[in-house]
This record gives sequence, structure tokens and C-alpha cells, in this order.
Amino acid sequence: MILPMKQCLGPNRNPTMSTTVNESKIAHLLISCPDRKGVIAAVTTAVAGCGGNVLDADQHADPNDGRFSMRLTFEGIDDRARLESTLGELDLRYRIRWPGPLPRMAILCSKQTHCVADLLWRASIAELPATVTRVISNHADAGNLANSFGFPYDHLMVSAQTKIAQETQIIELLKSDQVDLVVLARYMQILSPAFIAHFPNRIINIHHSFLPAFAGAKPYHRAFERGVKLIGATAHYVTDDLDEGPIVAQRTAHVTHRDTIEDLVRKGRDLERVVLAEAVRMHLEDRIIVDGRRTIVFE
Amino acid sequence: MILPMKQCLGPNRNPTMSTTVNESKIAHLLISCPDRKGVIAAVTTAVAGCGGNVLDADQHADPNDGRFSMRLTFEGIDDRARLESTLGELDLRYRIRWPGPLPRMAILCSKQTHCVADLLWRASIAELPATVTRVISNHADAGNLANSFGFPYDHLMVSAQTKIAQETQIIELLKSDQVDLVVLARYMQILSPAFIAHFPNRIINIHHSFLPAFAGAKPYHRAFERGVKLIGATAHYVTDDLDEGPIVAQRTAHVTHRDTIEDLVRKGRDLERVVLAEAVRMHLEDRIIVDGRRTIVFE
Amino acid sequence: MILPMKQCLGPNRNPTMSTTVNESKIAHLLISCPDRKGVIAAVTTAVAGCGGNVLDADQHADPNDGRFSMRLTFEGIDDRARLESTLGELDLRYRIRWPGPLPRMAILCSKQTHCVADLLWRASIAELPATVTRVISNHADAGNLANSFGFPYDHLMVSAQTKIAQETQIIELLKSDQVDLVVLARYMQILSPAFIAHFPNRIINIHHSFLPAFAGAKPYHRAFERGVKLIGATAHYVTDDLDEGPIVAQRTAHVTHRDTIEDLVRKGRDLERVVLAEAVRMHLEDRIIVDGRRTIVFE
Amino acid sequence: MILPMKQCLGPNRNPTMSTTVNESKIAHLLISCPDRKGVIAAVTTAVAGCGGNVLDADQHADPNDGRFSMRLTFEGIDDRARLESTLGELDLRYRIRWPGPLPRMAILCSKQTHCVADLLWRASIAELPATVTRVISNHADAGNLANSFGFPYDHLMVSAQTKIAQETQIIELLKSDQVDLVVLARYMQILSPAFIAHFPNRIINIHHSFLPAFAGAKPYHRAFERGVKLIGATAHYVTDDLDEGPIVAQRTAHVTHRDTIEDLVRKGRDLERVVLAEAVRMHLEDRIIVDGRRTIVFE
Repeated sequence: MILPMKQCLGPNRNPTMSTTVNESKIAHLLISCPDRKGVIAAVTTAVAGCGGNVLDADQHADPNDGRFSMRLTFEGIDDRARLESTLGELDLRYRIRWPGPLPRMAILCSKQTHCVADLLWRASIAELPATVTRVISNHADAGNLANSFGFPYDHLMVSAQTKIAQETQIIELLKSDQVDLVVLARYMQILSPAFIAHFPNRIINIHHSFLPAFAGAKPYHRAFERGVKLIGATAHYVTDDLDEGPIVAQRTAHVTHRDTIEDLVRKGRDLERVVLAEAVRMHLEDRIIVDGRRTIVFE
Repeated sequence: MILPMKQCLGPNRNPTMSTTVNESKIAHLLISCPDRKGVIAAVTTAVAGCGGNVLDADQHADPNDGRFSMRLTFEGIDDRARLESTLGELDLRYRIRWPGPLPRMAILCSKQTHCVADLLWRASIAELPATVTRVISNHADAGNLANSFGFPYDHLMVSAQTKIAQETQIIELLKSDQVDLVVLARYMQILSPAFIAHFPNRIINIHHSFLPAFAGAKPYHRAFERGVKLIGATAHYVTDDLDEGPIVAQRTAHVTHRDTIEDLVRKGRDLERVVLAEAVRMHLEDRIIVDGRRTIVFE
Repeated sequence: MILPMKQCLGPNRNPTMSTTVNESKIAHLLISCPDRKGVIAAVTTAVAGCGGNVLDADQHADPNDGRFSMRLTFEGIDDRARLESTLGELDLRYRIRWPGPLPRMAILCSKQTHCVADLLWRASIAELPATVTRVISNHADAGNLANSFGFPYDHLMVSAQTKIAQETQIIELLKSDQVDLVVLARYMQILSPAFIAHFPNRIINIHHSFLPAFAGAKPYHRAFERGVKLIGATAHYVTDDLDEGPIVAQRTAHVTHRDTIEDLVRKGRDLERVVLAEAVRMHLEDRIIVDGRRTIVFE
Repeated sequence: MILPMKQCLGPNRNPTMSTTVNESKIAHLLISCPDRKGVIAAVTTAVAGCGGNVLDADQHADPNDGRFSMRLTFEGIDDRARLESTLGELDLRYRIRWPGPLPRMAILCSKQTHCVADLLWRASIAELPATVTRVISNHADAGNLANSFGFPYDHLMVSAQTKIAQETQIIELLKSDQVDLVVLARYMQILSPAFIAHFPNRIINIHHSFLPAFAGAKPYHRAFERGVKLIGATAHYVTDDLDEGPIVAQRTAHVTHRDTIEDLVRKGRDLERVVLAEAVRMHLEDRIIVDGRRTIVFE
């Protein structure tokens, strides 16, 4: 199965519009192609031939679908066009992020603020290599928080009647921001397929269960009723099938009979924000290749 | 909801037939009743009034179903009848295991030996406080292993035609052994409701997934296909609903895109045997009270 | 070994000065005494005799030092003096926190803000049952943060020359605040024995290693040099011996050869704030009894 | 710092003497050299030029010591001499394990059997890709166990007077076995520097603490006294400095005030055997490069 490029690698980075400059000289190269003899040699020779110095490399040859994936970080290439031209001759799909502006990220949230607060804090200390363009919410709850960090906050209320209009408004904002990533930080609205189609493999959601267990609504309540001894959180790319998108990161934590539903919610907050932040960082650092329902995460 | 006693506490221990004597002077008391004012005082006063010295106590008052549960370990009571009579007046359900023979346990397994090997080894170094009466299997694979530890091994083959007869044979062996616990150590036959009815809340199974995810067959294959980032194992009491019984213990382990199905199986073996051993130890030490679909595990 | 009361239980709560009222009707009772027959019966009978309804109970009888510890939560007692008088006749040390104002907590920090930001956020959503009286720092870094949450911020610079004066100033602020807990949220000054003596078992520090490994300065650097495969964080009560106080909570996380010192610091931030918050919550909910160099934490 | 080859990579595999044949066609290549431009391209081009098909590759360029490390697995090379000759011209240190006999491993143990039992079981189901040549012990305890698996058992008692002679005897056995790995599975004798010098970076020990905490004797007792909230286990290569060798694998588990020293020992057994087995597998699969006091483990 050869995936269309946008599905596994996403589009090349658009360097315009960013406001924060990535001072590093490091480029990231992602490659996906059917496995074949000599492909690592060909790619690394191309990079070396253009004067590039490889800093980190990771590969994966999947024995199931015969697909080869690679991530290469390097520095020292002045003639970018020459490398792209050489790679273009190699019959493989690739994406490069050259040194330049940081990737651009928008955050959608609702009433609960633990995930958005955590992401904004991480962005503010530069733990996440991104420019946060704005926070959008159907509630007012996170407004002061976003403003205290200096980020724009769009409070776009939604009802059954206004859902399509509100989505259209959000899409326009995200498009004008030229975002590389949309983070659903406990955004409690289901996005339409039309929305999702605008940002293939560029929307990350956090679900408060260890998927595929407890997909859908109220996972902590159902976990409590089922009497599980651990709860979990799952960060995944959003597809048309709710809670069925490719999983990027998961964690679990132990619970006991003493834990009420409120305790599960409290323990879950700590899981959710760490798992979401991990997935977001992996995306922003170009560490993820989507392979059907699975992800390759070059940690 | 007030559960029938056998459902939440199980029958009192039958002290006959055991061959290994529990040298300790310690008794275990499990109590389950609707929560009410003064119940801890009443029970502990009863024990102290009979000369008992409490060594360990744990309680749980469930705010959802209003049920009170308690585990008490104590020593120093000579007049057992007097304590039982006093408890009998308190309008509660209880079960006592007096000092005496170790609980009796049988193990059922099939071709895979990692769980049975682990349990037998733990029993052999007295980490598990039980007398293993026998190992029963529909395959020959674990025979040498059981014999090397000195345990009887019954190889009872089964086919669609002989299933009822084989189950009847197993039930007779377990009844004649007077087992307190039946462990399904990767026993790959589905037990009939009739079988299960003989041993309510006394059959523990290990399932190789983090239930309720991947209930049913081939969980590692389905976990691989779904692209989860962690695998799990679940030990639970067996009920008529496959993989739906009350959960006793669960653990998960991280996996990555590099892990093949064979790797999941290998990592899973380490999870399964530890989770199963933990659940078995909890049962043998009288630490579990079943409360509907949930368990209270006094660790 | 019978510990002086203040050392294991701390003083009874002073209910004055608090501004936030604990609306619940629940009281917490902590007990510590030499183990003896009938002590649980005596205490629970006393509570029931005063009309109290026990909601949660936990005990521990230490086989090493023969010490009995107990935590009881109950509601429904109107005549508080009567219960205290009954308990006073039982020859044991106890501490009660009656329903009333929330415990009062001050936070000390320096340049790094991850722990203080996390604690303030948890307090702001009422996950931590405390009134934060103020944040004190020898640096200005966390000022805006504290103010954005509405908490007072005292920037008290310190040098070798002003250390005693600055400490005196802090002690006065904490005394006037009548704090129940002082949290060192990566406060990078060593407190004098005189300071510590004012708040016995009421100062919690977070150390960025799995103590006793890497006590002292620069633990992440030393962990990197030693080539460990996991890093950790430890929350402990502060005593005169640096990093030697009773441990309340610890966690570790895996690291690999790919992790630079900067990666350890980043991963460590997530550990530190969770471990510190856990220890602080245990203290605020009266779940900790100090027993020499060890802690009993009734989770 | 450029390490001598034997210190970081170990000697090339001696293919004689092995009795179990590795049926796979896969070769493992380990490389260590100062980092320089084009090294990945040079090595992978060499492999491709000899007809090799790369199945898995992993690299690490250490920014601290400027050292480049690489592990490559490949198949399809008929002319082994040609590849070795090509690699020989590249000014780097390498080691190849060609398809052929399984690596050879001996196990040393004392009275405690949990680690040796676990390793033998894993070897018996071919989870560990090794030929176990023998088990050597200064006690008789594991004899029946080893024999039940069909492995030779040498019971070589030792006293202060006979220590040198016993060590000499062990060295001779290991040399005649031509072992690739010596596993100290809770072997409670300290090996002399002379012994260690015979097997540089080929002796793996399991220590029952999270090193560097509790190096030396009785770690569980000291952990209990210190009141830690987690215990650990560490597998490391053995050097002349006791418990100071390069760490390969570590894990921790939570403990509480309820856990006695016996509980720590019991929980520790589960940690120790898993950590040791993990380290042994990494060594046998040629996944480890030693870099001073640190290890690179290509998982």
C-alpha cells in the first residue's frame, strides 16, 4: 500500500507568515517509500554530497506492508534546491523543513482548561517549538488564561443552528494563520468531515481513555462502572471516524476501588495534558509519519 | 444493592483435605454489609472482646451503592465459636479464614506455558500461600514442567464432541480436590455456564489485553492493527459473559512502531504472568471482595 | 520509639485567619500511639458514641517499631469537646481537623517556574484544598504568574550578607499568615536550622532526583554522567540534613542514550511538578504521619 | 575520547564451538568512530555495494564526546570478506556477527534462584537467542532446576581460602566454552579484577537497587530504613569498581509504608528478573555499545 504523500507526510512547510524565527541551522527530512535495496545509502549520499552533516537519523522498514520510512536531521546545506532536486530523482516521497520560522499552531478548547493551560505554558517557556497563533473556544473559560500568556482568544459560541457557520469561521481563521497544527485540547465539539479535510493529519485530539477502550462520551464514568484498575489517555490524529484516527501517544495510570469518578477525572487531567503535550511535540519536531491507521514516531 | 453472600465473599473455607499446614496464627475476616453508623466499632469491639489482637485492618465505604466492606487480620483468639456467634448477631455478612491449612488451588492451561510456569515457581518458593492440587491441560506441553515441580498433571484432551464430558471430568477433579481457587493460566477453552456456576468468584482468568479493549480472540493482532502505543493484561473473575467478569488487576507496557506482533506477544508474556500472579495472591490472601462488576482489593 | 507529638502529627489546626471556608462537614482525625489490643475499637467506639459517622478509615501497625497509626474521616459530630475529651482519656496522641477554613499554604520559589505554576493552577481549580496566602521568591520571574492568578508575590532578594535578614522576613510573613504548609517549589536557597525549627514537618521540598541517589547539587548532570536509564523526583519534608528528610512521594521516568542533559531537565519538569503536587495534596488532606525517617501516607 | 575497540564493541564473534545454529540469514554490524560527515552514507553504500539489504538501522551521534555509533542489520551478502575489506578502509572500528551459531552464554548464581530460573526458561522457549553452555554456582540450590532444563550444572563451592582456585576453575570453564556472555544472576561473590579482565564488557550483573542509590550490600534493608517510596533493579556491565559499571537497564516499582522488607524482596524479585533478562537480550542481539561509563542501547 503506497499512501498518497499528504496522507503520510503532510505538505511541505509554508515558511511565510511566521513571526518567531527558528534560530537553529537544522533541517528535518522525512521520507516514505516502498522498501528497496540501497535507499539509506542513496539518501545519505545525497545529503553528504550537498555538504550536509547528519546529526540524527532514524529508519523503519515495516515487514508487514514493505514500507520504508526515515527521518534525518542535518545542517550545513547552503544550496537547498540542489538537494531537493537530487532527492526528486530518487523516486520517493519526501518532505523537508528547512531552518526558518517555527511551525504555527492553533489550539481549540471548551470549558475545561487543563490541557490548554499546559500547552500555553510549555509554549511560553519554548519547550514546544511553535508559534501559537491563537486559542479558539466555544466558551469563555480560557480567555483570561490565554490573554495572560499574550495569545489571542476567539470566543466563538456554537449551537446546533450555528455549527456550520462557526466551523467555517474557524477554518478561515486557521487558514489565514497558515497553521501547521490544530490541537483539540478537550474541544467538546465533533468536527465535520469538511473541516477535517482541510487539515489532513494536522489535527491532534486528546481522548480521555486508553483507546480503543471507552471511545465516545463519558469515558471516566464508563471506566468506573466497568471497574477497571487503570485509566488512560490517548492522543491521535483526527479522521472522519470519531476516536478512530491514528494513535500518536498513550499512557495509563493505576486506580483502585477507593477512587471515585471525581478522582478518575483528577488523575486523568495529569495523564491527558502530558500525553497531549508529548504528541504535539512529536508533530512539531517532524517525528511522525502516518502509515494507514498506525503511526511511526521517531523518538 | 445487597449481594448474596456467596457472590461477594464466597463460602467459608473448608479446612479438610489440605496437606500443607499454614503455621501462622493469623485469621482473616472479610465483612460486607450496608454502611451504617458504628459498624467498625462493633466489629473491632467483638474481636477485642474475644481477646483478638488486630494486626491489619482496611475498610471501604462506597458512596455510590452505600456498601461497607472491611478486611481484618488478627491473632490470639482461642474461642472461635464465641467470635462467630458475636459476629452473627451484628446483621452483616462475613467470612473467616481461621489459621489452618493453606488454600487449595488448581491450574488449567493449554499450549502456552509462561503463566503456569510462573505460578508453579512462585508456589514452589512459597511466595503464593497455596497448595497446588494439580495442573490440568488439554495439551501435553506443560507436563514435564509440572512434574519437575512435583505436581500432578492431568492431560485431558478435548474436541467439540467431548467438550461436555471433559468439563465434567475437570469439575469432578476440582470438587474432589476441594479447591478454593481455579486459575485459568492461558487455558484456551471457553468454560460453560454450568462449569462456572460451580465456582462462583473462584475462577481467575488472564486475558492478554487491557480490557475492555480487545476482548475476545487474538488481542495482540488486533492491538497491532489498531496501532496502539501500549499493550496490556487483565486478570479477572470468570462469569458467564466472556471477558466481562470483575477485574482484579491490570497492567500496561509501552510499545512502538518497531514492535512486531511477535514482539507484542513477547512483551505480553511478561505482563500476563505478573498480573495473573498478583491477582492470584490477592485472592489467596483473602484481599478481594466482589461488588457487582467491580472488585474491592485490599492491598 | 515514641515520637513527640509535634514531630509525627504536627500541631492542631488553628482555624483563625483563613479566608476560604471549607464547606464540607467532614473532620479528619490522625492518631499515633504504641500498638495495643483494642485501640481501633476504642477510637471508633468513641466516635460512634458522639454520633459520628465514619466515612473512611485506614490503619497501620508497624511490626518494626510497634507503633500504631490511624486516619479516620467522619461527619455528624456536634459536640466537638466531648469527642476530644473522650479521646484524651485513651492515652494516645491525636490531632483533629474539624470542618472549617481550608489549610493555609505559602509557596517559595526561585527562577524556575514549572512547580509554582503547577501548584497555583491546581489551587485555582480547587484541586488542592488550600488557601494560598502568598508566593515568596528571591527572584522576580514568577511575579506576573502569581499576580495573574490573584496571589500576592513577595520578591525578597537575598545575598550572602542578607541571608539571615531575608529568612527572618520570610518567617515573619509565614507566621503572620499562620501557614499550615510551606512548599519549596524549586526554591534554590538552603534554609537554616532556625527557619526549619519554626515549621517542623510542615515544609515540603521537591528534589530533582530519586533520592538517595544524586542528593545535593546538579542531579541531572550527575545522572547524565553516570549513564542511568531513569531519572526521578522526590518530595520530602525538610529537616536539618539536606535532602535527608522523610520522603513523601517519588516517581521515575525512563531515559535513553539519546537524551541530552536538556532532555533530562525537560522530562524532569513533568516528574517534579506531579510528585510535588501529590505530596502537597497528601499533606493538605491530613494523610501523612511522620515516623522517624519514614512516612506513613494513607492514600 | 576514542575508546579501544574491545572496550566499546568487544571482540568479533568466534563462530566455533557453538552447538545451536542460528537459522536466520541476518547479520549484525556495530560501528563506533569519531563523528564525521558522510559516515552513514559510506557504511550503507558499502553494504549496498556488496548486495546487502538493510533491514534495520540505528545511529547515535553524541554531541558531548563527538562519537558516532551505528547498528545495522542486513541480509543478502555472500562475499563476507569483500564487505569486511571495504569497511576496513573506512577508518572506523566495527564488529560483525555473521549468520551462524547462536552466541554462547554461561550463568553464575548462588542460593537465590529467581533470576537463573527466569533466564533458563526464556532460553528454553528461544526468547533469548543464545546457547546456554552451563550454570555455575557456589551453592547446590539451582542444580535440579538447571538439570530439569537439560543444562550442565557445576557446583563449585568457595571459601576465603579457595577463592582464587575456584575463580581459576570458573575462568577455565568459561574459556573452554568460548562464551560471549557471562551473566551474574544474583551471584553473591565479588569477582577479582583478574577475572573481569578476561571478559571485558561481557559480564552482566543484576544489582537489586536503582543504582547509584544503595550500591553495596543489603540494598532492600537500606531502602526500607531510608523510607523510599520506590525500589529498583539495575543491570550493568561488571568493571573493577563494584556496582559502578556501565548501566544497561533499570526499572523501579512503587512501595508503601505497608511493605515490609520481605515485601520489598518479593517485589524486587519481579523487577530483577525482568531487568536482567532485558539487558541480556540486548547484549545477545548486539544492541549495546559501551561509551565510557555510559551505554548506547539500540532498542
